[in-house]
Amino acid sequence: VQRVNVSEFDLIAMLRERCAVPRADVRVGIGDDGAVLRVPRGRQLVVAMDTLVAGVHFPHDTAPADIAWKALAVNLSDLAAMGAEPAWATLALTLPRAQRRWLDEFARGFAQLARAHRVALVGGDTTRGALTITVQAHGLVSPRGTLLRGAARVGDAIYVSGSLGDAAAGLAIAQGRMRGVARAVAKTLCARLDRPTPRVALGAALHGIAHAAIDVSDGLCADLAHVLDASRVGAAIDASALPSSSALRRAVPDAKARRHWQLSGGDDYELCFTAAPRAAARVAQLARTLRLPLTRIGTITRRRGLRVLDERGAEMRMSEFGYAHF
Amino acid sequence: VQRVNVSEFDLIAMLRERCAVPRADVRVGIGDDGAVLRVPRGRQLVVAMDTLVAGVHFPHDTAPADIAWKALAVNLSDLAAMGAEPAWATLALTLPRAQRRWLDEFARGFAQLARAHRVALVGGDTTRGALTITVQAHGLVSPRGTLLRGAARVGDAIYVSGSLGDAAAGLAIAQGRMRGVARAVAKTLCARLDRPTPRVALGAALHGIAHAAIDVSDGLCADLAHVLDASRVGAAIDASALPSSSALRRAVPDAKARRHWQLSGGDDYELCFTAAPRAAARVAQLARTLRLPLTRIGTITRRRGLRVLDERGAEMRMSEFGYAHF
Repeated sequence: VQRVNVSEFDLIAMLRERCAVPRADVRVGIGDDGAVLRVPRGRQLVVAMDTLVAGVHFPHDTAPADIAWKALAVNLSDLAAMGAEPAWATLALTLPRAQRRWLDEFARGFAQLARAHRVALVGGDTTRGALTITVQAHGLVSPRGTLLRGAARVGDAIYVSGSLGDAAAGLAIAQGRMRGVARAVAKTLCARLDRPTPRVALGAALHGIAHAAIDVSDGLCADLAHVLDASRVGAAIDASALPSSSALRRAVPDAKARRHWQLSGGDDYELCFTAAPRAAARVAQLARTLRLPLTRIGTITRRRGLRVLDERGAEMRMSEFGYAHF
Repeated sequence: VQRVNVSEFDLIAMLRERCAVPRADVRVGIGDDGAVLRVPRGRQLVVAMDTLVAGVHFPHDTAPADIAWKALAVNLSDLAAMGAEPAWATLALTLPRAQRRWLDEFARGFAQLARAHRVALVGGDTTRGALTITVQAHGLVSPRGTLLRGAARVGDAIYVSGSLGDAAAGLAIAQGRMRGVARAVAKTLCARLDRPTPRVALGAALHGIAHAAIDVSDGLCADLAHVLDASRVGAAIDASALPSSSALRRAVPDAKARRHWQLSGGDDYELCFTAAPRAAARVAQLARTLRLPLTRIGTITRRRGLRVLDERGAEMRMSEFGYAHF
């Protein structure tokens, strides 16, 4: 039970080198007792921390580059949902043994996403044990640009970015629960599961447009319910309006059958946000600028609770879309 | 491999409640996609992240309150070694199952230390898996008050706070490698291992006095070597000057035998710092103010490398004090 490190110094040096993202706001990075970081005047610090455990959050045989990507992506997604611009990350990596090749691949996946968003790795810890990855992402936000769960207002339109249900379908394919899907389609859906795209640019651009926001990690209904609880409002969403990717439409041609994946499937890491109806033109413009679909899927209501309406406007029962799981 | 949470909402609510430390600089704490924190003008952010793994960093049967205390303490110790004042913490807790009593005890230990230093728990994650605790501590420091490893200067006096070797002796007792120690003495030494005291007030007070600092987590020689490397200097330390607690003197009456524990034993979480010789009176005054021994143990030298001198001034071989372990 003594402090055992998996060749800690080599590993940290390698990660530091591979993830090098020069930032003027990093006064001290890896290599001291702590990192020293400069938060600019007029900006607030946003932090998000998420853990991925092998065999729980991803299969043991997941490619190390995908594990690293996802561990960072889920945290950048949280920053995006707060409207924050990512700046720095820390990484706690617990692993059974230090295999050079595994670590190389892990560092490659981490660095790919970190560089894309100019996130500097500024610290962390490496320990020996069951494969567990904790990342903390640090972002910066202007006080008025912060998107909070509790800020939804009655009458707000509810939007979702991109498309829903792909990652859950990808997981079903990976687990053999969904068969007969064309290879290219399956690959696309599984990539959504393994390499989620955090909607960072969208989150930052929603300043002045959106009221409340959350990222879709546990499933649309579950996540939207957090917004409703925090805002003390309800919502009606239109199941037939939920955006589907062409891959999901090919894998699950029946629109009704797709709803299950779209309403209750997690891991898409799209943003769900609310905005005043008069902001519709600005939302549409933003979608064009970002080349990212932003689809209106419902309305915030005074009546509490979440109602899901089918294409005829009739309320669906939870059992119809699997929300009872939560 | 779906996202599985150990009754995440109950657990987070409990920890939030138990660790409640009101701070005006927490704009958003637990309960949104991320925490939103205010860093005051003129202060920089210091972050430190450390992981403890059951069976590696502590025995499986360690009291949960001690595990939580230590997980926070080792990070506060890092902040202290940077000269930072602690402000916020995040916690990633991976545990095999959610046992109410275990969690209660864990929360109690965490809250005890968090309250003592006014550290607010602002976020984190709970997941299912092998018992692993990652804490990130966030502190604030004035740019000129930051204590860096690379700031030691030739001629500086080297100091260490408190006493050295207790935690390593405590570990030897816990593991049955040191026998025949009186019960009360053993208890004192084991408490140093299980409930280290981060030298937070000392770190903050060293502003304007110390040049370089580090906390003694891996052992005096190993940790001091990091300071020497970063500062591109050497050091000579006097083995007979190393401070011993009365408990260690009782457990190991022979001074020479104690040196092994004091030079190479880890987990004491004392601060080792360097200061100009002319600061000696201020260091002595600080020791009185804090009621904490600050002992001069050596000098920073131009000649690189770390030399350990015995009571006659002769250089000891590494094999004499176990530094070869590192």
